[in-house]
Amino acid sequence: MKLFNKVGIVGMGLIGGSLALAIKKRQLADEVVGVSRHKKSLLLAKKMGAIDKGSQEFDIIKNADLLILSTPVNTILKLAPKVSKAITKDCIVTDVGSTKKEIVSSLGKIFFNYIGSHPLAGSEKRGIINARAALFKNSLCILTPTKKTNTLALKKIESLWNKIGAKTILLNPSVHDKILSFTSHLPHLIAFSLMDTIPRKYLRFASGGLKDATRIASSDNRLWTDILLSNRKNVIKTVDLFQDNLSKIKFAIIRKNRKLLNNILKQAKNKRNGLSYKSSAGLNFPQPC
Amino acid sequence: MKLFNKVGIVGMGLIGGSLALAIKKRQLADEVVGVSRHKKSLLLAKKMGAIDKGSQEFDIIKNADLLILSTPVNTILKLAPKVSKAITKDCIVTDVGSTKKEIVSSLGKIFFNYIGSHPLAGSEKRGIINARAALFKNSLCILTPTKKTNTLALKKIESLWNKIGAKTILLNPSVHDKILSFTSHLPHLIAFSLMDTIPRKYLRFASGGLKDATRIASSDNRLWTDILLSNRKNVIKTVDLFQDNLSKIKFAIIRKNRKLLNNILKQAKNKRNGLSYKSSAGLNFPQPC
Repeated sequence: MKLFNKVGIVGMGLIGGSLALAIKKRQLADEVVGVSRHKKSLLLAKKMGAIDKGSQEFDIIKNADLLILSTPVNTILKLAPKVSKAITKDCIVTDVGSTKKEIVSSLGKIFFNYIGSHPLAGSEKRGIINARAALFKNSLCILTPTKKTNTLALKKIESLWNKIGAKTILLNPSVHDKILSFTSHLPHLIAFSLMDTIPRKYLRFASGGLKDATRIASSDNRLWTDILLSNRKNVIKTVDLFQDNLSKIKFAIIRKNRKLLNNILKQAKNKRNGLSYKSSAGLNFPQPC
Repeated sequence: MKLFNKVGIVGMGLIGGSLALAIKKRQLADEVVGVSRHKKSLLLAKKMGAIDKGSQEFDIIKNADLLILSTPVNTILKLAPKVSKAITKDCIVTDVGSTKKEIVSSLGKIFFNYIGSHPLAGSEKRGIINARAALFKNSLCILTPTKKTNTLALKKIESLWNKIGAKTILLNPSVHDKILSFTSHLPHLIAFSLMDTIPRKYLRFASGGLKDATRIASSDNRLWTDILLSNRKNVIKTVDLFQDNLSKIKFAIIRKNRKLLNNILKQAKNKRNGLSYKSSAGLNFPQPC
């Protein structure tokens, strides 16, 4: 069922490409056009049937009634003023950035009809080459409307995500950034730091546990530099909390306090057992909050 | 091909049960007997075809020519003196404990013919119910012989692991414990601490990244209390190093040092990319060192 006439997607990576494929597959728009710095990505997106037309210039998105900004956080912030000149006032605009406070505040001023999105999908793999229409199936997409948000636009954006398989949930941008600093930014930062700590010569002794624990350290470093700096204050607080908790465990080991150590591990284990195991995206029946 | 007449396995959990199944499947012994505190585990082991006979008493291992101690680290240390009374001097003894220095030093004094083993296999799941003959396929098993070790016994133990699918590598017990503090103990400790840090109410926002990063936090808390205390000094040093590295990343974020932050993440990513991804055990062609 058609939702839009023309969808413009800026950024033809894993998320932008998968969105394009999903929109085409579900026939949610008459036309999907893509913008990328990389000619190769545009050619591949065209070949994969993700877009009807691609260009390295913003002119191509003219007359779009939906614009999706699907680049790393910092690039979204940089491109927004330029992109805004290519579209009309009534074009609905969303982005897929992993942090929301900074972006929503900035883009809310630039675009007349803007709503932030953050699909909790994706993987450590990147690029249009890894894009697939089913990427958002059974995933969660957080939307961050504000007081200014047009209700009809919000309904259409919700409908878009639902139709490509994602459940949607509405959060305040600041609350989003606080939650994600725990559930996403901290685990990434720890995985990078864990890899940083393990001597290269010991890597051949890596078992499945280490591999699973550090899969996300294969994520794009520039993307994550952007995310961590964009959510700087929350990330610092969360890391401080983690460091305190890690020190608690360390002191239990130093003091040979078997009972305390066992209690901490047991509580952590019980909490983890509450998460159903499903690798790469997917959630346990999230409820709106 | 038969390697032993009678194999006794003390501990009918994931590893003990899987060893029993693998030995039976490859017909490496005439008889496999199991000892467990839990009658239920023995009954299930018998039903699964893992053992010929089971008992809650050590008498059953009498006349075994191979004894495998397959309980948590601390239990191995506690049981060894009792078990030694049930076997003859020429019985080859090994254990599958996750730390080696303490165990090798202790068991080397108790048993005449002892060699430490540490199969880098297993998962966060436990118990005979999860045992399978293929658990050790394409895995690595570290053996920790000492000057006292009988060469023939070492050859037989190497042959046992090889025949059930594991590559073997020889390491000094202290070197083993140092390496494992990085590649196994630190990741587990971090996963427990990460779960400890995430507020329960945010868990419903967990994506695949968090789930993978914390899979090993579902591991048995008592087993890991034992391991962390048994390798106390190495674990503390490794945690200190990790905390320093994490602080480096944190300060790069505090100072908004984009270049430094990106460099740290890039190096970690490159190191991680060197690990082939394979969940739950399995190694990249390890070479002896």
